[in-house]
Amino acid sequence: MVQEWLGALRLIDHHCHGVLDRDLEPAEFEALLTEADEPGTELSGSLWDTQVGFALRRWCAPVLGLPAHASPDDYLARRMELGADEVNRRFLTAAALDVLCVDTGYTPQAMLEPPALGKLAGARAYEVVRLERLAEDAVADEVSAAAFAGEVRSRLNAKVRSESVVGCKSIAAYRAGLELSGERPTGAEVTSAAGRLLREADRAMAGRSAPPRVSDEVLHRFLVWCSVDAGLPVQFHVGYGDADADLRRGDPLLLTSLLQAVAPTGVPVMLLHNYPFHRHAGYLAQVFPNVFVDVGLATHNLGHRAPTLIAELLELAPFGKVLYSSDAFGLAELYHLGALLFRRGLGAYLGSGVEDGAWTEEDAVRVGELVASGNARRAYRLPQAQEQAH
Amino acid sequence: MVQEWLGALRLIDHHCHGVLDRDLEPAEFEALLTEADEPGTELSGSLWDTQVGFALRRWCAPVLGLPAHASPDDYLARRMELGADEVNRRFLTAAALDVLCVDTGYTPQAMLEPPALGKLAGARAYEVVRLERLAEDAVADEVSAAAFAGEVRSRLNAKVRSESVVGCKSIAAYRAGLELSGERPTGAEVTSAAGRLLREADRAMAGRSAPPRVSDEVLHRFLVWCSVDAGLPVQFHVGYGDADADLRRGDPLLLTSLLQAVAPTGVPVMLLHNYPFHRHAGYLAQVFPNVFVDVGLATHNLGHRAPTLIAELLELAPFGKVLYSSDAFGLAELYHLGALLFRRGLGAYLGSGVEDGAWTEEDAVRVGELVASGNARRAYRLPQAQEQAH
Amino acid sequence: MVQEWLGALRLIDHHCHGVLDRDLEPAEFEALLTEADEPGTELSGSLWDTQVGFALRRWCAPVLGLPAHASPDDYLARRMELGADEVNRRFLTAAALDVLCVDTGYTPQAMLEPPALGKLAGARAYEVVRLERLAEDAVADEVSAAAFAGEVRSRLNAKVRSESVVGCKSIAAYRAGLELSGERPTGAEVTSAAGRLLREADRAMAGRSAPPRVSDEVLHRFLVWCSVDAGLPVQFHVGYGDADADLRRGDPLLLTSLLQAVAPTGVPVMLLHNYPFHRHAGYLAQVFPNVFVDVGLATHNLGHRAPTLIAELLELAPFGKVLYSSDAFGLAELYHLGALLFRRGLGAYLGSGVEDGAWTEEDAVRVGELVASGNARRAYRLPQAQEQAH
Repeated sequence: MVQEWLGALRLIDHHCHGVLDRDLEPAEFEALLTEADEPGTELSGSLWDTQVGFALRRWCAPVLGLPAHASPDDYLARRMELGADEVNRRFLTAAALDVLCVDTGYTPQAMLEPPALGKLAGARAYEVVRLERLAEDAVADEVSAAAFAGEVRSRLNAKVRSESVVGCKSIAAYRAGLELSGERPTGAEVTSAAGRLLREADRAMAGRSAPPRVSDEVLHRFLVWCSVDAGLPVQFHVGYGDADADLRRGDPLLLTSLLQAVAPTGVPVMLLHNYPFHRHAGYLAQVFPNVFVDVGLATHNLGHRAPTLIAELLELAPFGKVLYSSDAFGLAELYHLGALLFRRGLGAYLGSGVEDGAWTEEDAVRVGELVASGNARRAYRLPQAQEQAH
Repeated sequence: MVQEWLGALRLIDHHCHGVLDRDLEPAEFEALLTEADEPGTELSGSLWDTQVGFALRRWCAPVLGLPAHASPDDYLARRMELGADEVNRRFLTAAALDVLCVDTGYTPQAMLEPPALGKLAGARAYEVVRLERLAEDAVADEVSAAAFAGEVRSRLNAKVRSESVVGCKSIAAYRAGLELSGERPTGAEVTSAAGRLLREADRAMAGRSAPPRVSDEVLHRFLVWCSVDAGLPVQFHVGYGDADADLRRGDPLLLTSLLQAVAPTGVPVMLLHNYPFHRHAGYLAQVFPNVFVDVGLATHNLGHRAPTLIAELLELAPFGKVLYSSDAFGLAELYHLGALLFRRGLGAYLGSGVEDGAWTEEDAVRVGELVASGNARRAYRLPQAQEQAH
Repeated sequence: MVQEWLGALRLIDHHCHGVLDRDLEPAEFEALLTEADEPGTELSGSLWDTQVGFALRRWCAPVLGLPAHASPDDYLARRMELGADEVNRRFLTAAALDVLCVDTGYTPQAMLEPPALGKLAGARAYEVVRLERLAEDAVADEVSAAAFAGEVRSRLNAKVRSESVVGCKSIAAYRAGLELSGERPTGAEVTSAAGRLLREADRAMAGRSAPPRVSDEVLHRFLVWCSVDAGLPVQFHVGYGDADADLRRGDPLLLTSLLQAVAPTGVPVMLLHNYPFHRHAGYLAQVFPNVFVDVGLATHNLGHRAPTLIAELLELAPFGKVLYSSDAFGLAELYHLGALLFRRGLGAYLGSGVEDGAWTEEDAVRVGELVASGNARRAYRLPQAQEQAH
């Protein structure tokens, strides 16, 4: 009963990326399946032989009209036959989402923008501003060091006024690491750090190399405070990601000092992904009233093991502090797979608790709804679900 | 069979605090439920919507004569109606304890002292001396830096002679962190560190601010050696606690050097709580013959998930090295809930092993008794259980 | 079906040690059961009361003709009665191995060499060269600092030509820790570090103390590159081991920089044991195409909990990147117990996935074979299984 009910819940996917709007070659598809940079090699074996590969064959093949467990070759052939538009439409619809919050700051190639993505999904789509990208864009526009801080705040405020923006995201975990100080940086520190970045940018331009990336602890921290000062919830990439990040520096406990400093503002902080540190994240969600957590990205990558992941997150994290995200990037399948595995995992968890007498069916339904969408709606101050959402 | 037998075992709760001896307001009760400092907020949602909240409604409501899963409002109303004395008596009795070892060093408000707590529980109550408090009391009494070390040892020895003291506790994890050196500090180092603390105390008195707290690695370490030299088992707060601690510094592996130094003395070291580092603690319990471990505090906070926690602790930790504690503080419910969830979790674990043929029923009963009380009795050299204990 | 099929699979044990070729006293046997240095004490209790102790009584007693769960005393008496040769033969045969890769570098006492071990097991036996031992032997032979690097490479190349060598092993985790730089050390750095080691060796000889051990980050790193340059897969001790190692320094994430540097060579890197960091290791196996992982040592030490361990490893680690090892040392029982628990755990895992519809029986059989032997065969370039292997 509870499981069926949860199985039909529309979700708020509070952190995802755009989808690729074109057909994909087999190697390209395989490279997008996991966090490896490339498809499998002769040495590694196929990346279809992963939890996410098996989960995709099981759950996504039927959406394309194939039997469950279709072979990778059959799957890719059918995908090509249907074409990207139809494939994207089918999976985004199947995901059964009420809202998408789209991180628009990582676009190594052209991807569908939030409005188009929302339209495909039959859902409202909001934007999440990637803070480091915002700063890098200001640098590319040759702001002066002295004007940097003001320019960044002004660009962020313009975003806020657009009303499609619901939060910001920090990728400090990929750059300086999450060990950010609890002190607000002074104006002089920000100017000095911006000056270093601008000089790097000059050298890059002279040498025709790639423009520099924000990777200075002071700047990451400054950007987080810009978001907090604007009253915008801050998402942090935490834990699991590609090999470009040093996972050691992605433990959410490294954020403790900063979280202590931000807590009094009451601005929500969202810890994304978290695996394999999701129990650490659950602790932070319990002791900081403004910290929310999810296990996006890991949910579809763990496939058949997703229920265990969800159960471990729900050890210390209060039910009112857990969110859903897919962290889907590029492949339409991942919006659906993340949503399906999360709904099934949460439903199985809450349902088995009802059977064991751990909580009542009424409570299971109530907290299921919180996790599926109520918590995100409250934390991001989103309007109530649309009529068609039920 | 095994589960029923274990379900009736009296436990030694080798680490708990006092209980509050007065009626509690709803917000106060909610703030004491978890390790958050405050009750839930509009943003966070209610802290009743946690594993511990659901477990409390399920298991504690019937002790107050309510149906399982009573609503928080009904629960609190009934609690008020019965009054603190009756509520405390019911839960302490329901806990079915043989012995309580009470950390008397953290009393932000008046709490029942060990003798009164033991009387309520129908159990013998011993005292665990909080080392940092002992040192802070000596500082408050204006000992000189040169006399500090001797004064601390002398106060500790007086406690030992009282015969109600069975061990000491270090809260280094909340202050300098657990990365304590394996070297004994020299007398000069201790005098110098004590001098710093005394000067802080003078400044605090002059400025009418709060007296300073021991947070110097040298002093934490000195205090641990005082306990070891007195032959008193040392408890360490490890892992999970409130946001005042930096959880990163609470990993028990940080204690490795100190454990190597203490091992030859044969004085028991007890690692408390340990979540989410309980597997690290289990490893230490296996390789150091004098290290014991528990999952107190986490047991009731994980509620429905406590069986998994217990099973993970029992991966590497030998059955002869695992203890029970509640770490209950303030709420009478937590003495009962910790004991109930531990007995049920251990019973389910050992019982399912019997069913699977992993061990015999005879072995399950034998190691169940060790974990419930035998190990604590041996490590703390406690007398045999009282007649009425069975 | 799947479970039965997997239960009959011959395994490649890609990392083990020699077996003791003599009868063992009870205390000696107990000390070899776990990673504790000594048998249990009056304080700790018996180390038979551990997961590995219970698993051994259950699964190994019948191999010696005793009922399952025989008492430790009966077990040891029967073992003595049969004699070491017969006991070793029975367990090595029962392990049902196709190949053993034997680390020959840790021999505190005489142990069976790979050929004799292979003969006992009816399996092909290869050698794994312990890198630090190779360097220490060169130092013992009084190579000069300037000639050190060349001598080490030359000794390694001689090993490679012997054709019985299939890989190298680094024990940096036990010495300098796994935080090895991603830079190749320069010749001057290696000469300088070798000079320090040689001077220590001189002092040790003069003082008749034990010869020095390699514990310099530069030398560990140099040795890893020697193996990589020779095209030999490198095994790393990671995580769980005895108290001589500081487990904090054994987290595989500390290897990230070095793994990034080695990845382009395509030389396989094998992360051994990994517990309690096996999820970290699984992540590395996903994002680095040349990284392979196992949960040897932990598998038999976790006994009844081994299925959970295997399931956690298989969260992010692709099925093509997981290997089997026992890490058996000294006790013949451990070759059998590791293999049995791994086969059962993997079989239960893959079989329950078939029942739940997570993957097909065909896929389960295929990836089961990869994990049991196919991945190791591919990574170490071993010849196909012998006829008698099936």
